Amino acid sequence: MPLHPDRLFPAEPAKRDIARLLYGHVRDLPIVSPHGHTDPTWYAEDMPFPDPATLFVKPDHYIFRMLYSQGIALEALGVPRPDGTPVETDGRKIWRLFADNYHLFRGTPSRLWFEHSLETVFGIGERLGADNADRLYDRISEQLADPSMRPRALYERFNIEAISTTDAATDALAAHEAILASGWKGRVVPAYRPDAVVDASRTGFHTAVEELLGLAETPATFAGYLEAHRRRRTYFKARGATSTDHGHPTALTANLSQADAAALFDRVMKPEVDARDAELFRAQMLTEMARMSIEDGLVMQIHPGSFRNHNPQLFETFGFDKGADIPTRTDYVRDLKPLLDLFGNDPRLTLILFTLDETTYGRELAPLAGHYPALRLGPAWWFFDSPDGMRRFRELTTETAGFYNTVGFNDDTRAFCSIPARHDMARRIDCAYLAELVSDHRLEEDEAYEVAHDLAYNLAKKAYRL
Amino acid sequence: MPLHPDRLFPAEPAKRDIARLLYGHVRDLPIVSPHGHTDPTWYAEDMPFPDPATLFVKPDHYIFRMLYSQGIALEALGVPRPDGTPVETDGRKIWRLFADNYHLFRGTPSRLWFEHSLETVFGIGERLGADNADRLYDRISEQLADPSMRPRALYERFNIEAISTTDAATDALAAHEAILASGWKGRVVPAYRPDAVVDASRTGFHTAVEELLGLAETPATFAGYLEAHRRRRTYFKARGATSTDHGHPTALTANLSQADAAALFDRVMKPEVDARDAELFRAQMLTEMARMSIEDGLVMQIHPGSFRNHNPQLFETFGFDKGADIPTRTDYVRDLKPLLDLFGNDPRLTLILFTLDETTYGRELAPLAGHYPALRLGPAWWFFDSPDGMRRFRELTTETAGFYNTVGFNDDTRAFCSIPARHDMARRIDCAYLAELVSDHRLEEDEAYEVAHDLAYNLAKKAYRL
Amino acid sequence: MPLHPDRLFPAEPAKRDIARLLYGHVRDLPIVSPHGHTDPTWYAEDMPFPDPATLFVKPDHYIFRMLYSQGIALEALGVPRPDGTPVETDGRKIWRLFADNYHLFRGTPSRLWFEHSLETVFGIGERLGADNADRLYDRISEQLADPSMRPRALYERFNIEAISTTDAATDALAAHEAILASGWKGRVVPAYRPDAVVDASRTGFHTAVEELLGLAETPATFAGYLEAHRRRRTYFKARGATSTDHGHPTALTANLSQADAAALFDRVMKPEVDARDAELFRAQMLTEMARMSIEDGLVMQIHPGSFRNHNPQLFETFGFDKGADIPTRTDYVRDLKPLLDLFGNDPRLTLILFTLDETTYGRELAPLAGHYPALRLGPAWWFFDSPDGMRRFRELTTETAGFYNTVGFNDDTRAFCSIPARHDMARRIDCAYLAELVSDHRLEEDEAYEVAHDLAYNLAKKAYRL
Repeated sequence: MPLHPDRLFPAEPAKRDIARLLYGHVRDLPIVSPHGHTDPTWYAEDMPFPDPATLFVKPDHYIFRMLYSQGIALEALGVPRPDGTPVETDGRKIWRLFADNYHLFRGTPSRLWFEHSLETVFGIGERLGADNADRLYDRISEQLADPSMRPRALYERFNIEAISTTDAATDALAAHEAILASGWKGRVVPAYRPDAVVDASRTGFHTAVEELLGLAETPATFAGYLEAHRRRRTYFKARGATSTDHGHPTALTANLSQADAAALFDRVMKPEVDARDAELFRAQMLTEMARMSIEDGLVMQIHPGSFRNHNPQLFETFGFDKGADIPTRTDYVRDLKPLLDLFGNDPRLTLILFTLDETTYGRELAPLAGHYPALRLGPAWWFFDSPDGMRRFRELTTETAGFYNTVGFNDDTRAFCSIPARHDMARRIDCAYLAELVSDHRLEEDEAYEVAHDLAYNLAKKAYRL
Repeated sequence: MPLHPDRLFPAEPAKRDIARLLYGHVRDLPIVSPHGHTDPTWYAEDMPFPDPATLFVKPDHYIFRMLYSQGIALEALGVPRPDGTPVETDGRKIWRLFADNYHLFRGTPSRLWFEHSLETVFGIGERLGADNADRLYDRISEQLADPSMRPRALYERFNIEAISTTDAATDALAAHEAILASGWKGRVVPAYRPDAVVDASRTGFHTAVEELLGLAETPATFAGYLEAHRRRRTYFKARGATSTDHGHPTALTANLSQADAAALFDRVMKPEVDARDAELFRAQMLTEMARMSIEDGLVMQIHPGSFRNHNPQLFETFGFDKGADIPTRTDYVRDLKPLLDLFGNDPRLTLILFTLDETTYGRELAPLAGHYPALRLGPAWWFFDSPDGMRRFRELTTETAGFYNTVGFNDDTRAFCSIPARHDMARRIDCAYLAELVSDHRLEEDEAYEVAHDLAYNLAKKAYRL
Repeated sequence: MPLHPDRLFPAEPAKRDIARLLYGHVRDLPIVSPHGHTDPTWYAEDMPFPDPATLFVKPDHYIFRMLYSQGIALEALGVPRPDGTPVETDGRKIWRLFADNYHLFRGTPSRLWFEHSLETVFGIGERLGADNADRLYDRISEQLADPSMRPRALYERFNIEAISTTDAATDALAAHEAILASGWKGRVVPAYRPDAVVDASRTGFHTAVEELLGLAETPATFAGYLEAHRRRRTYFKARGATSTDHGHPTALTANLSQADAAALFDRVMKPEVDARDAELFRAQMLTEMARMSIEDGLVMQIHPGSFRNHNPQLFETFGFDKGADIPTRTDYVRDLKPLLDLFGNDPRLTLILFTLDETTYGRELAPLAGHYPALRLGPAWWFFDSPDGMRRFRELTTETAGFYNTVGFNDDTRAFCSIPARHDMARRIDCAYLAELVSDHRLEEDEAYEVAHDLAYNLAKKAYRL
C-alpha cells in the first residue's frame, strides 16, 4: 500500500486541511531522538545491515510477539537461544513466515512503521504477502549491499540531528569514543542507564556493582558506591551524555537518612537479597540520582511499570526482552512523593516521567507535571506509541499540563529504519490533534504552527539539553 | 423512531460511505452466538412467549435497574419475590410504567436494542410513550400469539447458525437432549458453568458438590471431585458443548501441589468455609479447568470482576441478578500468572478473557493476548456491550493485540428478541471502526472487508470451535 | 481571539448544525449554580473588584499552578504568604508576567474561560500577550471602577437564578443574612461544609469542634456533637441552604454501632489522633450526615479523592489550595457500601457523587447510580471540568446511567467572571454530545432538545431542590 499523503489525518475535510498545513511546516524538520536503543557500533563501524529478516523481524519484539501470540515458535523466527540450541538461520524462510502472517498486523503501528520503512528507505510501495515475499526479499537484500544503506548514510538521509543510545553504567563507551574520534559529523550520545547496578533483585547485580566500583576505583561502601556513580556520570557526560534513564518495576522513591541508606547498601551487597530491601534500595537510588542530576545537570528519566519477563518458560529459553513484558498499574502520587518532597521545586532538575498505565495521564501525571517545576511528561511509550495511544496522551494531558510540560517525541527504538516512520507518525498525530483544537476554536492557527514546531523539534532539544 | 439505515455509522460522509459498504457485506451473515443465557426449554418446547411485559421488562435487568434507580419499585415492574409476596401481574400496567419512563433510556443501548426488536420483529417503527403504550401493547400481544413468533421460528428468522446456552455443571441437559431428539435443525449447545460447585463462598455450595459427585458417581475426595468434573464435561461435550464458562469475583488463579489442593478441598468441604480458602479454591479450580480443557478441548472463558449482589436489601427481597452487580478493578497480570506459567504457551488451550474494568484493555489484556498463544480477548461485556463501549474496546486493544487475538461478538443475553439487535450493533460498530482505519489510511479497503467478515462470523466460529 | 460562535462544536457540518440548533435553545437559560466557592461578602457588600491581577491571577489556582510548573515563583504572582513575607503587590507586574507566559495555557480550559470573560464582561476580543498587556490592564482597570462591574450587577447580567456558596459548619453566615436583609432579589444560598469539624487529621480540628459545640450549645459527647450538627444544619437551612458538601480523601463510609461511634468520638477528641481513627471517624460521619439528610432534606455531596497539599515546601510557605492537590485512585464500590447498605434504597436521600478518578465513571459510578435510587452523579469535576473531560464524562456514564441520574452542571469556582464561561462551555459540550447521538441516530432531535434543556437547567434545580 503506497503511503497516502493524508494518512493519520482527520477525515473531515476542514480539519484535514488544517492538519495538512501544520504538518507541511514540520515534516522536514531534523529528527532529535533523545531516547532510543540503536546500537552505537552501527555508527562507529558503519557496516552494512545483513538480510531483511535480520533487519525487520529477528530483533523487533513488536513483530515477533504478535506472531508468537498466534502460535508461531520463536525458533522459527530466528530468535536466538542463549543455550546455543540452533534456531532458523535462513532469512528467507523467516521472511516468508512473516509475509504469510502479515494480516495479523492489521490495525497495529508495527504495520505502519514497516510500510513507511519499505517505501521511504527501499522504494517499495507494495503490501507484503505470500505472493511477493520472495521478490521483496531479493529487492531489499540487493539494496542493503549498497553503500547508501550503511548506518551513517542512513543517519544523514533520515536528517537526524542528534540521537541518544542507552548504555549500561559500566559500559566503556568505546563505540561512542570511536565515533567522536572518527571526525564524522553525526551526533550520537550515550545515556546513563544504571539499572543493573541499582536493582539488587537482578541476577548479576553483585558482579555489576563490583565492576562499577572497579571502573571508578572507589571502595565498596555506600559512599564509595555513590562516588562511583558520580564518576561514571562524569565519564558519560564527557562523551556527550545529557541524560540518565531508569527502568524500574514501580515509581517508588525513598528518602532515607544517609546512615540508613548505607546500612541498606550493606544488606543488598550480601549474597541473599530480601525483595523488600531490593525495592527500597531502588527507591532510594532514584532519589540519589535526582540529587546527582541537580549537581551535574543530566536530565533524569523514569520508565516505571513494566512487569518484566512475565512468561518464565520463554524467559528460560530466550532470555530478556522477548515480548513477555506486561504493563502494570502505577501510583505516581504516593511513590514519587519522597523524591518530590526534596527536589520537586528545584528548577535545576528535569525529571521526565513515562508510563505504561494510561489511567495515570489525567489522574496523576498531568496534575503533577502541571504543578512541580522539576517534572515533565515523556511521550506515549511502548504499547502506547501508536496513533490512538498518542492521541489519548494529548487528550488526557493537555487540558491540565498544557503542551509545555511535555518534551516532544522519543522513538525509543532499536529498529533503525523505523526512526523516521515513528517521528513522522508522531508529527502527524500531533498535527491532527492541533487541527482538532483549531477547528473547534480552542486554539488559533498561528499558535498551532508554533506548537507543532515545538512538539516536533524544540521541546525535545530543550528538555534534553541537546 | 424508525430504524435509520445509517445508525451508528460515522457522520462524516466519506467514512460513512465506507462503513455502509463494509456493513453491506456482513449484515446478512448468519448469527453465531457462542455465549448467552437464553433458556433451552424455549427451543425444546417451542411455546409462545407470553405478554409484552414478560418479554421485554420483567426479565431484563438492564431495563428494570434503570427504572429502579429512579425510584420505581421492582414489585410494580412484576419482578417476582422468592418469598411469594405478590407483585404486579398485570402486564399492561407494567408496560405502561415502562412507557411512562421511556425517556430514562435515552442514550442507552437498551433503548436501541428495544427499538430494533420492535421494528424488526413486530414491525413497529414508533417510539414508545404514554400516548401509544396501550396500542403497542395490544399489537405486540396479538402477534405473540402467532406461530411465526414461537422460539424455533424466530431462531430461523434471526438466521442463527448456532447458539450456546449457559448451564450448571449439575444440569441434566434435558432440554438440550429434547432438542437433539426432535430432529429440529437448530443448533443449541450447552456450556459448562461450574461456579456453583467451585465457589465455596456461595450458599448451597456443599449441596451442589454432593449433587455433582452423585451424578458422576465419584468419591468425595479431591481426586473424585476432579474426576466428577471430567465426567460432567464429557457429558456436556456429548450434548454439543464446546466451551466452559467461569464467573469469578477476581481473575485469581493458583498452582498448588495436588496434595495442598486436596487438603484445601477437604477444608472447603467442611460446613464453615474461610473466605480466603474459598478464594484460593476458586483460583486453583481455574487452573484445574484449564488443565482439563487441554485434555478435552473445551474452550475456557473467564468472566471476572463483578461484585455480585451489592445491595443486600434488594438481594434479600428479590435474590440474584437484580441489577445490583457492580464492576470492580481487576488485576490480570498478577492474578493469571500461576495459570499462564503452566499453560499460557500451550496452543491446545484457548482461554478467552472478559473484563468489566476497561482500564485493563490497553494496560493488561491486549499485551497479554498479544503475547500468550493460549489467550484470546472476549468482546466488550455487559455494561460495555454498547456503541461507545465496543468502540473503546477496539481502540484500546487493536494496536497491541490486533484483530486476530479477539473472538468476534457474544450477545450474552437472555432477551431473545434482542439477539439480532445486539449482533447488528456489533457489526455496525466494527464496520464504523474499520471505516475509520480505512479513511485515515491505516488499512486498505480490501483488507477491511476481510476483517469485517472475520469479526462478524469467522472468529467466533473458530475460537469457540463451533 | 474573538469568541467564535461555533467554538467547541463538532467540525463535521451536519453534526455542527444540530449542535448549533440545540445550543440556540439553551444558550440564554438562567444559570443555576448549585455548587461553588464565590465569596458571599461580594454580594453582601457589593464593592468593586480591585485590579485585573487580583481578579484573574492571584486567586486562581488553575492559573498560578501552570505558571509555577514552569518555574515562576508564586511570590512574583502576588500569592500571599501567611508568614507575612512580602510578595509582589504591583498588579501590573503580575499581569505582565501572566501575559508573557500566556502560551502555556494553549489547549487548557483556563484559556477558554479567561477569553470568554475578557470578551463578554470587558468587551476585549484580543489575545493577551506581551505586546498588549499594559493596554488591556488599563482597559480592564478602568471598567472595574464602573458600577456595572459590581458583584450584584454582574450577578444580574450573568442571568444567575441561584448560586450556592460553600461555608464552614461554624460560619455565622453573616453575609448571607445581610443579603437576605438587604431586599436584593439575588438568591445566594449557603452550603453546609463540615470537613473542619469532621476530619480529625486536620490541624485545628479540636478547636473547630469546640466552636461547633459552643455555637450549638450542646455537650462534648458524641450525642451532643451529632445534635450540634443537626442544629447547625437547621441554621443553614433557615438561611437558604439546600445541600451539604463533604471533601474527603477517600469515599470510605462506615456503619458503626452508636456505642462504637461514641467511643471513637471520644478517642478523636483526645489531643493525639491515630490516623486510622481519623479515617474511620470521617467514614462514620458520612453515614451520619446521610441519616440527617433523610431527616432534614438537605442534598448530600461527596467530593473524594484529592491528595491535598502534596507539596510540603509550598504548603509551609503558602498554605492550603495552592495547586498542589493531586487526584488519587478511588474505590466507590467497597467504600460506599456501608452507607448504601443503610440508605441506598431510600428515595428521600439524594447523594451526589463526584470523582477525580475518571476510571470510575464507567466501572463504578455509572453502574452504582444506574441502580441505587439515592445516588446521582455530579458533573466532571476540577481537572476534568474541561471540554475533553466533560465529553468523556458523558461518553463513559450515559450508556449505563442515562442522563437522568446526572445533575446538570456545577461551576465550582471562586473566579466570579468565569461563571458564565463555564456554564457556556458545559452547555456547548453537552449539545455537541447530543448532536453526536442525533447524527448517528441514537436519539431523535425532539428528544435532544428536551435533554439539552434538562442538562442546562432543570436537572440542577431538581437535584439540588432549588
